[in-house]
Amino acid sequence: MANSKFEYVKQFEQMQNLLPNTYIVVRIDGKGFHKFTKSYEFEKPNDEQGLKLMSFSACVVMETFPDIQIAYGQSDEFSFVLKKDSELYSRRSDKIATCVCSTFTSVYTFNFEKFMKKPLQFPYIPIFDARCVCYPDLQNIRDYLSWRQADCHINNLYNTCFWGLVQKGMNKQEAEKTLAGTNAGDKNELLFSKLGKNYNNELEMFKKGTTIIRYPTQERVNLKVELDVDSKEQQKLNKKQKKKQKYKELNQQELNQLPNQQKEDLQVKEFYVDIIKDNFWIENKAYILL
Amino acid sequence: MANSKFEYVKQFEQMQNLLPNTYIVVRIDGKGFHKFTKSYEFEKPNDEQGLKLMSFSACVVMETFPDIQIAYGQSDEFSFVLKKDSELYSRRSDKIATCVCSTFTSVYTFNFEKFMKKPLQFPYIPIFDARCVCYPDLQNIRDYLSWRQADCHINNLYNTCFWGLVQKGMNKQEAEKTLAGTNAGDKNELLFSKLGKNYNNELEMFKKGTTIIRYPTQERVNLKVELDVDSKEQQKLNKKQKKKQKYKELNQQELNQLPNQQKEDLQVKEFYVDIIKDNFWIENKAYILL
Amino acid sequence: MANSKFEYVKQFEQMQNLLPNTYIVVRIDGKGFHKFTKSYEFEKPNDEQGLKLMSFSACVVMETFPDIQIAYGQSDEFSFVLKKDSELYSRRSDKIATCVCSTFTSVYTFNFEKFMKKPLQFPYIPIFDARCVCYPDLQNIRDYLSWRQADCHINNLYNTCFWGLVQKGMNKQEAEKTLAGTNAGDKNELLFSKLGKNYNNELEMFKKGTTIIRYPTQERVNLKVELDVDSKEQQKLNKKQKKKQKYKELNQQELNQLPNQQKEDLQVKEFYVDIIKDNFWIENKAYILL
Amino acid sequence: MANSKFEYVKQFEQMQNLLPNTYIVVRIDGKGFHKFTKSYEFEKPNDEQGLKLMSFSACVVMETFPDIQIAYGQSDEFSFVLKKDSELYSRRSDKIATCVCSTFTSVYTFNFEKFMKKPLQFPYIPIFDARCVCYPDLQNIRDYLSWRQADCHINNLYNTCFWGLVQKGMNKQEAEKTLAGTNAGDKNELLFSKLGKNYNNELEMFKKGTTIIRYPTQERVNLKVELDVDSKEQQKLNKKQKKKQKYKELNQQELNQLPNQQKEDLQVKEFYVDIIKDNFWIENKAYILL
Repeated sequence: MANSKFEYVKQFEQMQNLLPNTYIVVRIDGKGFHKFTKSYEFEKPNDEQGLKLMSFSACVVMETFPDIQIAYGQSDEFSFVLKKDSELYSRRSDKIATCVCSTFTSVYTFNFEKFMKKPLQFPYIPIFDARCVCYPDLQNIRDYLSWRQADCHINNLYNTCFWGLVQKGMNKQEAEKTLAGTNAGDKNELLFSKLGKNYNNELEMFKKGTTIIRYPTQERVNLKVELDVDSKEQQKLNKKQKKKQKYKELNQQELNQLPNQQKEDLQVKEFYVDIIKDNFWIENKAYILL
Repeated sequence: MANSKFEYVKQFEQMQNLLPNTYIVVRIDGKGFHKFTKSYEFEKPNDEQGLKLMSFSACVVMETFPDIQIAYGQSDEFSFVLKKDSELYSRRSDKIATCVCSTFTSVYTFNFEKFMKKPLQFPYIPIFDARCVCYPDLQNIRDYLSWRQADCHINNLYNTCFWGLVQKGMNKQEAEKTLAGTNAGDKNELLFSKLGKNYNNELEMFKKGTTIIRYPTQERVNLKVELDVDSKEQQKLNKKQKKKQKYKELNQQELNQLPNQQKEDLQVKEFYVDIIKDNFWIENKAYILL
Repeated sequence: MANSKFEYVKQFEQMQNLLPNTYIVVRIDGKGFHKFTKSYEFEKPNDEQGLKLMSFSACVVMETFPDIQIAYGQSDEFSFVLKKDSELYSRRSDKIATCVCSTFTSVYTFNFEKFMKKPLQFPYIPIFDARCVCYPDLQNIRDYLSWRQADCHINNLYNTCFWGLVQKGMNKQEAEKTLAGTNAGDKNELLFSKLGKNYNNELEMFKKGTTIIRYPTQERVNLKVELDVDSKEQQKLNKKQKKKQKYKELNQQELNQLPNQQKEDLQVKEFYVDIIKDNFWIENKAYILL
Repeated sequence: MANSKFEYVKQFEQMQNLLPNTYIVVRIDGKGFHKFTKSYEFEKPNDEQGLKLMSFSACVVMETFPDIQIAYGQSDEFSFVLKKDSELYSRRSDKIATCVCSTFTSVYTFNFEKFMKKPLQFPYIPIFDARCVCYPDLQNIRDYLSWRQADCHINNLYNTCFWGLVQKGMNKQEAEKTLAGTNAGDKNELLFSKLGKNYNNELEMFKKGTTIIRYPTQERVNLKVELDVDSKEQQKLNKKQKKKQKYKELNQQELNQLPNQQKEDLQVKEFYVDIIKDNFWIENKAYILL
């Protein structure tokens, strides 16, 4: 029963190691979430608790994988940006994608009932896919995140109109037809005149999506999943992390303005703000170690 | 807020499409299961309910992805073999790995309490990684599965001895030392003489692992997860599947001996048997459409 | 001047190793051969000496890389099929493609004047690209070669008509228009009625392309280029080769019918025959070790 | 004879597109050049004409592929750096590697006799392999080139000692033994005391290798090989090139100091200088468009 004569099959593994010195983006995406959200009667166009469950799951992923520096999510997707010098799983693409995806899935499934106030029921259980993409420089990362946030805006404006019309009694085909060919201005106008809604008053979480970074804070909650397999690797990472993650590129004045806290007090924190313009990046540059 | 100026970032995706006309093996593997199983006090060396939870999750995966023809699992791992002509997700490696992995994770998490009679508790939640490997011919697949089953045997014999000694009061270092350098014969002898155990009497599930194929059966339970995103693709697959999955290569006599059932009655079924030798493959060749 | 601080750059190499147990096809293809052949006034639609130079270069490649079992060429392209268990350059895709391509280029450039009876003149020098493609089974390889030979037929029939019309005084646009939308029958008819040519009487080399295998022969010419870098690897290959390359799958009767020769006398040999149908493969199965 | 039923084989091609927004380095390397140079009695440790043939071939490659911004060579290898936004062959790795490799091979073979004053003779013909590697930022490229130049220095110092000793009558094993374990200082001392040579007086070409950039010059020689296949693509590239390749980042004073020439007068030019330190990069920053 010696194993050796079969071991040649290991040579068929063709692992892809992601190019060093590039940011790694892992994007997870809900599978069949149209049916999934319908079967649990998620509110349309946005279910606040559903989005909070997504966002909570993302926070746990960030705590579990310390190389993630920023995350952005909207609808049924979330993107995680790992720092350029990450050596997580030796940068093996499949391992990074599946571990992040599996952690997200596990947290989402485990916390579904707590957030949604109803139990999961087979065969409607949450499934996500994931992919890894490399970006060589910070401008690419900014553009990537802008791409996702612009997508959020476009979809949310459309969906707010569409479901507004439907809730007013219009059937779905009519609503679709009404919106065909309209631009952003038309949609804002329609919202205001036909549905009595000012788009500006919609929740920022709906309009901007959710951005997560590590930020100084009083509260400290452990969100890190126990994943001991790579403990040695993780320890090395943590040490490196600590040495490196000081507030970088701050001048004295900026440092003085910083709350009197140490790196150790950084905690994942959610923002519902514009990340396309420079403001967010300037204000928080001490905490986004990209 | 036009999206178009950011869309160039999509071009950075470098997807790998797995070589056509090859079997795709997806192997999922528990992350940090040493700590995970310890925190829930799984029985050592084997926890029957824990293995059944693994195996149940694998059954759901097989029902959800009809291109999987056979699965084999042991310990905290499971391997799924897709047929050569599978077009699942256009054979995109990351998509296949993450969707199978996420489905397995979701089912395992969702059913943990039912099988283990205790609730999951953060931060100990189940995480799995996954990888795809291509194999060009059936001999490679047989050898791959033999490799995993031989591994099961070697580990299980060792673990049965190790935990037997520990349960007799030996500490772990001593047990390790006692077993160092012993061969299979030594271990069988040690089990018999020192621990009063005949290895042959151990559960077949422990010694052989779990093999799952589609098999004619009376009972029909729906284990398929709702994944509607690829419904069109899935429909095409299902049609193709139906046309192709007839009992192939059967002579008249063999067909007569078949239970009076249709392909539609095939149901995933678990076996705890040797799959290294030819017997299993000959007996079930009507149901393993590789 | 220590090298070590720069050596990290080696880690950026992302080599692809081709899937084991698959046939590797290397196809080389002339770059800019329209202009190249025009500048040396190659005969149209086919230049016999030009094709012989291609074919000679392919013979040298086959002698230099003993893992190549069969080659097929037409026009400015040539395909080389390596056996399934080839370990050439550890199956590194870039290394196999560039070495075969460079050898072909070097031989073609070196022998140009001998075959074409005129010297090469800058800037018109021969350049080829190359790619590697894996095929899991023999049917795929048969279909691949059939694809190239069908392509040869289609192009050659068209070109024979086109250049026939042009040589009759028609200008190129008219010739193109005359042929637009015609099928094979139309083209044969046009050749016969308008150009007084029976396509069947064209040279087999033009109609079928050139197939090269190792075949028993009296003459023995050394065509192997000296490439000593991988000599150890090559030696291993050669030994393996000798042990393996016996006439396989022959029954006694077939063996008796074989010319009284040893494997050692096999020599690359060109054929201008149909390789889509089974005949060629049956007749030469002793010499095509795929 | 329809081609369509075989065309499915095209789907087996698995092309790698190199990550956008990264520098592409193509490194070609002589195959079996130990034997090759010996058979043509190249001078040891350096053959000036041999190195000039390498360098000339590299100049032709640079002229033929305008996206190459800088090249560096030593011994039997040459590296070519393409700019970050190159779209050459849609960044297909195999196509870039084989076309650069084939062009280099063709030029080297074609010009061998002119440089070396003796004809090529079969089976000793020049073969090169090639590989593509991506680097995300300029520091990586500087480090890559430093790695190759440091390698040049280390090998050349060793070889100068080794062949000096051999030319003094020592046999090769003894020479090897004499040099084992010596550091750079020891070797300089040995050269001076035992061989009467001052390493500083060796040719800069030997000590530093050859760096090629585009530089303002009076002479204008056409070195571009005709490669018309991608003419449309090439035209686009050329246009883009012209618009982009202005002298960038020059202040007014620097511009005044420039020779009174236009971009159109830039010509590939060889340098035998240190490229590890900053000087070369500062002095020529107007001409290295990385």
